[in-house]
Amino acid sequence: MLNKTHTKYIQTLHHKKFRDENGVFIAEGPKVVLELLDSREFVCLQLFAVEEWLISNAKTLQQYSGTEIFTVKDFELEKISLLTTANNVLAIFKKKEQRRPAQLKEKITLVLDTIQDPGNLGTIIRTADWFGVENIICSPACADMYNPKVVQSTMGSLARVNIFYTNLQEWLQENETIKKYAAALEGKNIKTLKDTREAIIIIGNEGKGISDAVMSTVDEKITIPKTGEAESLNAAVATGIILAAFS
Amino acid sequence: MLNKTHTKYIQTLHHKKFRDENGVFIAEGPKVVLELLDSREFVCLQLFAVEEWLISNAKTLQQYSGTEIFTVKDFELEKISLLTTANNVLAIFKKKEQRRPAQLKEKITLVLDTIQDPGNLGTIIRTADWFGVENIICSPACADMYNPKVVQSTMGSLARVNIFYTNLQEWLQENETIKKYAAALEGKNIKTLKDTREAIIIIGNEGKGISDAVMSTVDEKITIPKTGEAESLNAAVATGIILAAFS
Repeated sequence: MLNKTHTKYIQTLHHKKFRDENGVFIAEGPKVVLELLDSREFVCLQLFAVEEWLISNAKTLQQYSGTEIFTVKDFELEKISLLTTANNVLAIFKKKEQRRPAQLKEKITLVLDTIQDPGNLGTIIRTADWFGVENIICSPACADMYNPKVVQSTMGSLARVNIFYTNLQEWLQENETIKKYAAALEGKNIKTLKDTREAIIIIGNEGKGISDAVMSTVDEKITIPKTGEAESLNAAVATGIILAAFS
Repeated sequence: MLNKTHTKYIQTLHHKKFRDENGVFIAEGPKVVLELLDSREFVCLQLFAVEEWLISNAKTLQQYSGTEIFTVKDFELEKISLLTTANNVLAIFKKKEQRRPAQLKEKITLVLDTIQDPGNLGTIIRTADWFGVENIICSPACADMYNPKVVQSTMGSLARVNIFYTNLQEWLQENETIKKYAAALEGKNIKTLKDTREAIIIIGNEGKGISDAVMSTVDEKITIPKTGEAESLNAAVATGIILAAFS
């Protein structure tokens, strides 16, 4: 049973300000919630689910003794859900301290400059996870990794990819030994890249591209060859194509 | 000045039923509206824009004598817009008759089986446009190409890519001479594909994959090699990576 205090509290967590104040975030749907639980990367504080789901996941849930569990009706879940169709379970997790990547040698690292669309950021995190990217560095102007739409579109990959928000120019300058590639409309054809197992790949905002300050640190511009007419590619699609070329 | 009849009419067009009944659809924002106007593929019936935008695009608009033009205030545009932030212009275009692709020889053709998410469908159309794909064949269960979210995420590519809705199994059987590839979790590594300039590429629903009926027509399954942990890729990202491999 859901009371008004819960409903109000959960609704406030749709906003960054309240997520920051409370140090928590929301995840929805069986796939995302179970992946976050399984990962042990995030502590689950509260879990609201329909009875059927709680019964079929009873074994998993037994392991999380610190989690307050509430059985809710479908119509109650609808009230607190941000999804078009509420999907069995919504959970509140504790945010974690962000962690500066320790080691970039022989790794592909992704740097995102002002990726503001939450769906795009989430899809990029998921794509990075597919290609084994361990770290994503985000500029402060990127969408919040704990925005419910980001969490949703990561499909659980939030549990596996380390995301670090910082001033990009400074961070890039600190990591001067790793070669830096920038996705651009004009640059070296990605098809000519050969077996590059160590790189920092910078993806910019779709409209504005990569900022001058960040671009000044770049070693090589790279391009996805265009054979048609579209002016640009979606940022998540471009990231996928570039990571596939590097992998 | 916008009257209540306009507001109501435009709001009904957010629903497929009313778009079909009226044979029209909505496009929003300068980029998408201008690309659709420029293409001459779609007839613009009505255009609602803020004064500033109308002045700076007066020359372009002079060419469209059949278009009813309305000057609206920002707050009026907000009322009829589906965007988070209304963006200067909203236009109503006539839908066009769908056209069966005449010629697939020496072309890459995309087939979409139940791509239901409008944002994904729009992004796939945009990506296809980048790679010069002329035709996309959609199953009837795909999102409507005239859904405002699809139109928006195509970023204007709707004007250049021909989209044809039909029964996929029948259509694929009719085109038996072109080699058919299906994106799957297990198949031939896309990196081993060499210079393939003629192909039908089938992309399935993220959750359910490609239906058995469609799969029965396929010549070869292809796979994007995974080095990380994510269970799957977003359908638009997967399409981009596959088209890049073929191009």
